Amino acid sequence: MGVNVDIVVLLFDRMTALDAVGPVDVLKCLPDARLLFVGPEVGPLRTSSGGLLMHAERALEDVDQADILVVPGGHGTRALMEDARVLDWIRALDRTTSFTTSVCTGSLVLGAAGLLQGRHATTHWSTRTDLAALGAKPVPQRVVFDGKYVTGAGVSAGIDLALALCGRVAGDLIAQSIQLRIEYDPQPPWEAGSLEKAPADVVDLATASLLSG
Amino acid sequence: MGVNVDIVVLLFDRMTALDAVGPVDVLKCLPDARLLFVGPEVGPLRTSSGGLLMHAERALEDVDQADILVVPGGHGTRALMEDARVLDWIRALDRTTSFTTSVCTGSLVLGAAGLLQGRHATTHWSTRTDLAALGAKPVPQRVVFDGKYVTGAGVSAGIDLALALCGRVAGDLIAQSIQLRIEYDPQPPWEAGSLEKAPADVVDLATASLLSG
Repeated sequence: MGVNVDIVVLLFDRMTALDAVGPVDVLKCLPDARLLFVGPEVGPLRTSSGGLLMHAERALEDVDQADILVVPGGHGTRALMEDARVLDWIRALDRTTSFTTSVCTGSLVLGAAGLLQGRHATTHWSTRTDLAALGAKPVPQRVVFDGKYVTGAGVSAGIDLALALCGRVAGDLIAQSIQLRIEYDPQPPWEAGSLEKAPADVVDLATASLLSG
Repeated sequence: MGVNVDIVVLLFDRMTALDAVGPVDVLKCLPDARLLFVGPEVGPLRTSSGGLLMHAERALEDVDQADILVVPGGHGTRALMEDARVLDWIRALDRTTSFTTSVCTGSLVLGAAGLLQGRHATTHWSTRTDLAALGAKPVPQRVVFDGKYVTGAGVSAGIDLALALCGRVAGDLIAQSIQLRIEYDPQPPWEAGSLEKAPADVVDLATASLLSG
């Protein structure tokens, strides 16, 4: 990577905002980081995070290089997975990256682009079979490195992913200083944050909520 | 609270995006949640999160009621603390809320509005003395409840805050299902996320980075 680390974040309709913003607020702290927010078109995109609008400042064709690519997830990934223009752009950008990353169901988009064939990867707990159907080997871990491909589990996992990536890129001391800057000393009120830890009634309710919304 | 839970999120220039988006992606999962994104004016606001633009869809004067108010932090809080229009609006909205909340240096804005006088509260670790100067009693905790005032520590603490708040509003089962939906099973790579846990060289580097940026 050069003096400027170009971090390209894909934005799209019906994405989950936290999937992108978690990594963004970590990776922005890398020395010489430059963030680019890229969407199918320039302009506001409606996330599924309470309807929050986030703005793409570049269109796909405006950006042909990245050191780090971040593909978030969310309901909108289903449409992306069938969008040849987006998949072509991801494949082209991937040929230039040092790290190609995803959060949550963003890995399904990387998979649809053919980038995870035979690779270990992760996704939101509810979509592990979808990931396997795309040729990847799903691993029930929070963050999975396979060569330059780095995939995170659901939504909030992007923070852990980005911190681990900062460690690889800039070393442990800088990465830890970033962890302190964002005061990432998590204290979830319950032990219910993974499929393996959550009680059965919690899994049932979360599954029903995902299906309805 | 009624059938619709109105959650009002204040957006402003040079805010930290994750301060808002962490709580948003949790609180949006509350049954009957309705999110409103409010700024000084309607339109795009430039966060200090890599320059990401987020849109305010309502201006302050368009919104006069909230069940839950979320005030994020970031570099832009210094300007808000001297903006009588914003402080008047926060005081007026606070008279209607069930919970008035802040993340990171958002508590300095609540303090500047006079809402934390004599109350226990928290903020980003680097600004505890500023919070005390505004009449609050700083507590080095990740989330502090004092009556209806709920304050979170730096940046990432908004996720823990919002989950705890969901527990109060909707009960533990629903709150845990939300934790699972966002797969919040944090696994930070290091134990460096709080002032009390981070090694001295990490604190020094983080402090220097905050001063320079």
